[in-house]
Amino acid sequence: MLLEQELRQTIREIPDFPQKGVLFKDITPVLLKPRLVERCVEELARQFRVRDITKVVGIESRGFLLGPMIAQQLGAGFVIVRKKGKLPEVAASISYELEYGSATVEIAKDAIFPGDEVLIHDDLLATGGTAAATAKLVQQIGAKLAGFGFLISLEGLGGRKALESFGVPIVQLVSYAR
Amino acid sequence: MLLEQELRQTIREIPDFPQKGVLFKDITPVLLKPRLVERCVEELARQFRVRDITKVVGIESRGFLLGPMIAQQLGAGFVIVRKKGKLPEVAASISYELEYGSATVEIAKDAIFPGDEVLIHDDLLATGGTAAATAKLVQQIGAKLAGFGFLISLEGLGGRKALESFGVPIVQLVSYAR
Repeated sequence: MLLEQELRQTIREIPDFPQKGVLFKDITPVLLKPRLVERCVEELARQFRVRDITKVVGIESRGFLLGPMIAQQLGAGFVIVRKKGKLPEVAASISYELEYGSATVEIAKDAIFPGDEVLIHDDLLATGGTAAATAKLVQQIGAKLAGFGFLISLEGLGGRKALESFGVPIVQLVSYAR
Repeated sequence: MLLEQELRQTIREIPDFPQKGVLFKDITPVLLKPRLVERCVEELARQFRVRDITKVVGIESRGFLLGPMIAQQLGAGFVIVRKKGKLPEVAASISYELEYGSATVEIAKDAIFPGDEVLIHDDLLATGGTAAATAKLVQQIGAKLAGFGFLISLEGLGGRKALESFGVPIVQLVSYAR
């Protein structure tokens, strides 16, 4: 079966979570299938293999699930981005606007350096707010942004628009119209 | 270099985080070394290979980092345990006491079944509260608990005592006296 097709059959859609009107994409059934996980990781890594990625950045917490495996496949280090206050030593932090209020993400000290080629990974692209903030963090440190790799992209929420100004490839394995 | 020795040299100890008097063990430098990550995953998987593990349960959020790779190595599914309210559909939930207050963890629907052989994974064993609660969740569903696998164990905080009543192997790759 095509990877995209298998993902679409496996991802569970749950109405009104976490709030009314949202059709939540639940990736937990994907994780139950080791061969499908392997295919996802291989495909995301394959798309960026030519870029000589040295670091994969995963966004807390669902970016932690496939991110370390993508890094392994690319022979790269894995770097975590967490919400404010959870990392003991921070290299840089950035705040960004959410639909209601704002959020701050932080990147660990001594993890990314100028000269690194960085792939940013999260499970899902929606508005792109967190991914864009993470990309700015990476650039702030002086490293080179090489691309964004997502499992899922929700179209129509502005995510692609928020990220395309970075001028790097944006890859997802399956897209949903919202 | 021996795995334990390399881990000890790589894990960063940070005083007074997240609160005064705690010597925090920061695993983020481990994630930067793909070969070391691979060795950790292989060793944790090796210790449980004879048990025919069908599911690896990872505890949010640092149990998400190596858990899916351990599951891959064992040809098992990966199942997430999250704090209350984050999973859209829940099979079972359990509350447990913390030093101050209490917490609730939940396991996703349709992820673990009677007949599953379950390995519980987290990055660090301290008091064992969350791991013990997760083990009870697994047993509540009727699955068989096969063991606990941690990257780090902090001795002297009662973690081993909290888990030994389950009568299954408790494995860690490196221990620290507190």
